[in-house]
Amino acid sequence: MASDGLIQSLTAAFEAVPLIDPHSHIDPLSPVSKSLDDILGYHYYTELAHSAGMSQKLLAKDADPRERCREIIRHMDRYDNTAQYGWFVEIARHFLGFTGTRVTVADADTLFDASLKHFAAADWEQRVFAKTNLEKIFLTNEFDDSLDGFDTDKYVPCLRTDTLVFQFLSVGVRERLAAVTGIDAGDGPNLRKAIRALFERFVAKGAKACAISLPPEFTPSEDGNRIFWMLAENCREFGLPFDLMIGVNRRVYENGVHQGQDLFDRRCSLIQYRELFNAFPEVTFPVSVLTSGQNQELVAYSWIFPNVVPNGHWWYSNIPAYIGSDLRERLQCVPKTKLIGYYSDAYKLEFVLPKYSMYRRILANTIADEFVRPGRLTETEAVALGTRLLRDNVKEIFQLG
Amino acid sequence: MASDGLIQSLTAAFEAVPLIDPHSHIDPLSPVSKSLDDILGYHYYTELAHSAGMSQKLLAKDADPRERCREIIRHMDRYDNTAQYGWFVEIARHFLGFTGTRVTVADADTLFDASLKHFAAADWEQRVFAKTNLEKIFLTNEFDDSLDGFDTDKYVPCLRTDTLVFQFLSVGVRERLAAVTGIDAGDGPNLRKAIRALFERFVAKGAKACAISLPPEFTPSEDGNRIFWMLAENCREFGLPFDLMIGVNRRVYENGVHQGQDLFDRRCSLIQYRELFNAFPEVTFPVSVLTSGQNQELVAYSWIFPNVVPNGHWWYSNIPAYIGSDLRERLQCVPKTKLIGYYSDAYKLEFVLPKYSMYRRILANTIADEFVRPGRLTETEAVALGTRLLRDNVKEIFQLG
Amino acid sequence: MASDGLIQSLTAAFEAVPLIDPHSHIDPLSPVSKSLDDILGYHYYTELAHSAGMSQKLLAKDADPRERCREIIRHMDRYDNTAQYGWFVEIARHFLGFTGTRVTVADADTLFDASLKHFAAADWEQRVFAKTNLEKIFLTNEFDDSLDGFDTDKYVPCLRTDTLVFQFLSVGVRERLAAVTGIDAGDGPNLRKAIRALFERFVAKGAKACAISLPPEFTPSEDGNRIFWMLAENCREFGLPFDLMIGVNRRVYENGVHQGQDLFDRRCSLIQYRELFNAFPEVTFPVSVLTSGQNQELVAYSWIFPNVVPNGHWWYSNIPAYIGSDLRERLQCVPKTKLIGYYSDAYKLEFVLPKYSMYRRILANTIADEFVRPGRLTETEAVALGTRLLRDNVKEIFQLG
Repeated sequence: MASDGLIQSLTAAFEAVPLIDPHSHIDPLSPVSKSLDDILGYHYYTELAHSAGMSQKLLAKDADPRERCREIIRHMDRYDNTAQYGWFVEIARHFLGFTGTRVTVADADTLFDASLKHFAAADWEQRVFAKTNLEKIFLTNEFDDSLDGFDTDKYVPCLRTDTLVFQFLSVGVRERLAAVTGIDAGDGPNLRKAIRALFERFVAKGAKACAISLPPEFTPSEDGNRIFWMLAENCREFGLPFDLMIGVNRRVYENGVHQGQDLFDRRCSLIQYRELFNAFPEVTFPVSVLTSGQNQELVAYSWIFPNVVPNGHWWYSNIPAYIGSDLRERLQCVPKTKLIGYYSDAYKLEFVLPKYSMYRRILANTIADEFVRPGRLTETEAVALGTRLLRDNVKEIFQLG
Repeated sequence: MASDGLIQSLTAAFEAVPLIDPHSHIDPLSPVSKSLDDILGYHYYTELAHSAGMSQKLLAKDADPRERCREIIRHMDRYDNTAQYGWFVEIARHFLGFTGTRVTVADADTLFDASLKHFAAADWEQRVFAKTNLEKIFLTNEFDDSLDGFDTDKYVPCLRTDTLVFQFLSVGVRERLAAVTGIDAGDGPNLRKAIRALFERFVAKGAKACAISLPPEFTPSEDGNRIFWMLAENCREFGLPFDLMIGVNRRVYENGVHQGQDLFDRRCSLIQYRELFNAFPEVTFPVSVLTSGQNQELVAYSWIFPNVVPNGHWWYSNIPAYIGSDLRERLQCVPKTKLIGYYSDAYKLEFVLPKYSMYRRILANTIADEFVRPGRLTETEAVALGTRLLRDNVKEIFQLG
Repeated sequence: MASDGLIQSLTAAFEAVPLIDPHSHIDPLSPVSKSLDDILGYHYYTELAHSAGMSQKLLAKDADPRERCREIIRHMDRYDNTAQYGWFVEIARHFLGFTGTRVTVADADTLFDASLKHFAAADWEQRVFAKTNLEKIFLTNEFDDSLDGFDTDKYVPCLRTDTLVFQFLSVGVRERLAAVTGIDAGDGPNLRKAIRALFERFVAKGAKACAISLPPEFTPSEDGNRIFWMLAENCREFGLPFDLMIGVNRRVYENGVHQGQDLFDRRCSLIQYRELFNAFPEVTFPVSVLTSGQNQELVAYSWIFPNVVPNGHWWYSNIPAYIGSDLRERLQCVPKTKLIGYYSDAYKLEFVLPKYSMYRRILANTIADEFVRPGRLTETEAVALGTRLLRDNVKEIFQLG
């Protein structure tokens, strides 16, 4: 089979694997876009347009959505080299009836109109699920989010804990915790009870993970941040994996667009998690690192610690150049049963398709180069390996039924 | 078109683009080499020869230039694997009538003689400009350099500020500043006036940038180094980009050859520039990083901050392996209008050709792989993209007429 | 010649080069394996099996070796994607008569039986040497190891100094030093005499290097760790290269398998060695770095400092993805005479073959891509370049007869 044929064949096989997306920011009560504005309002586009010179005036809440979209698209000729632009073209083609290969400002109104039409379909959510070959998708729930009114088998709850760990002393947090648990966490024992009550509540609703994003300097310890440590204790008790998303500094660009203000200090090491990984051998820690430069640590710590597993390709590393090298390194020295291949991190379901599509192409190329062409795996075995990264490991590690 | 044909075609198209080289150390009053000694005296060769075992005796100022060149060339059989050796072969072929593919000690005298002959041509400077397809080249001027006696449209002045920021208290600096501005910077207000006078002087002479190289630990702040902050304020007032060249430790190898003593501590982060980037949204900061490991930060900060733009491939990262991966990462996630592709950093004009030649090959390969072969750009569009990195962005970002 | 033909031809030429392996942990009195248990007891397999879920019960000293091997092999279907698994298959094929391409638990007993049979051959050691095309291999000797009873021309002694530098105050170390040197190192002058006596003893037995592994934060200085500095002084006096293996944190995973507990903090810089490299220009420092992220520093420091040379691909970086990029970077900017290509780090001789085999494939591909295909070297010259990295430089740098 010719080289291109191999890649096409592997990619097609991977496209046939129903996806379980283990990390997103989907709102289960409003999972799909209502207009093009929901698509182009994604921070990847507002960031790039703003970075390339677009003023923020049209990004204000009360600005006209159609004008906003036109302006973001008008700036695309400044950032149409990016991977993120590629996702948008794919969305336009798959979900908006677009047939071209490049989107320019001349397409803005047509696309906006098409979005209103297509997205208004009564079964739009189901259509997106079907077209994406999506089976389940994990949520990122605040501790006091309602977990009712949606199918938790499809939209899997996940307890996001940034607020508890880093803003517990902010106005209203303790009250919110009391409201949802019935426990006023005014002292250590009650705090412990309240946190435990959250886990009971989430697990009862089918939650499959606890998650948190952490700044580069964070170093968990039993004598340090008490709430963080309690979360790990509850993960142990309730058998939940604890997703660690390591390395983000919040609000670095103070006047950046919404969700486009966070950056990082690459001087961060997994050695900071030494005490945690040793203290909780029973807890699985799916670890995402923000920088590709930290991938070798993630590889080595996953190779040594049974409870550390590499998790997807996060944010600033969710770019083909980084995914490709990070994936290759992981495949060469971490047990394949420990590799959670990818997650979309999406805010709207329409983004799951183009993001996984990008990942599947890289996965096909990497497995072809590393395993099939050198004769280490047959094509059938290669499909099994890719399927493991795409789906099987997600099911096993997060203990989905 | 066959794969090789595509690369050749793109490379040829890029060679036809007149160069504007936005960073060099050219002396406009002595821009070209006078003998082979000016070529091989470049620190890249003295460093490699010394590192490979050459004694420093012949590097003394009063040593015989012909013998020095012979000795540096004699050692080439120890470093003819390097990219820097490749530049030299290209110089020999383009500027010295050399027709071979490898230079050995047997060629030393012939090359030396050829250099005396060719470089003595009355129009040598013009010939180098023509052969290099060079239109303009930026200088690196000390604050009190004379800016007269040369064509500032061709040799674009640039205010280099290392001395002011890091050696202001050294003997003679304040006097030099007073001599050139007429202001004795004995207190804060007068220091401010003197710095401003420098900008007036440089801008009047057509300066297009302010520049500085910075050690890895440097963290600018309004309450920190006052002169640095004043420079940024003046860049804002006078509309000059402020080139930041981040990450060099000076004099690490104390007994190294001239200009071959500097190295680095890779533990450096752009988070150190958080306050600066926020405080001066009106100032464009073309940022060079010394290590490829910092490229992901440069990519991310350029993607988020409108005023941060990636600038070329500096010094220890000006090597094909690093240029290739750094360029690919930038092309995948930074708006293309913000990418300053390359600068030569040359001390003599003869080096502009081989250095840009290396870059153009990598640029052609990267654009072919990333955009043309996957069908994202036609060849014509690919040429436009490369031209943007090579020239258009330099014109726009540095506001050349 | 077709592309594959070129790689095959280069690889064959490299296989014909007799190996001098400049770093291993071979016990010269028991250099080869006695059973499959010696092969699979290598920490790379126990680590991966444990990381993939194998309990440590069978790893206890008194557990049944055959059962242990069966269990480690049973878990291979969880880590058969790794480079380390690839080494094992190659060992099975070369040394155990295995003819398949994949090892599964069904092969466990056959392989165990085969190991007992093959490894019991009276000339097994010679056969491994011959099949591996191995000429000499360096040892890693504790300061009070016996250096008698083996051929020191084949098994080259090397003074390993971790214990002296980092555990001198531990119980028994001073006594051991007194026992082997006859000097009680109770004060500075006597410590100096005792250290010097060690060097005399080792050099008399043909030692060719002093070596040490160092934690990431270690910063040698004349006023810091006195024993370390004395070692460098003795390396200078006795003309021994001082191997620095930089970056390992010991016992990070406290309950890890034997030798599977060490990890690292990637925030480590060669700037920490500035004083050392300057103070000892006469001492050659072959430097190994634990992380690929530090390779650019290693490249730059080797390019500038005559006494710093890059040494192999160590431990967590001894993986194709890292070897490939690190090697390419070194070849592009460090004098070729300074590149020590590889060492096996093996505990048993059977591992030298598969590890070098992996390296030779990468070396052939890298040299083909960087030098032969672009027309910079003929195939004959390319073989010479590879031979230099594999053998010539080892002979020259460690001054083997």
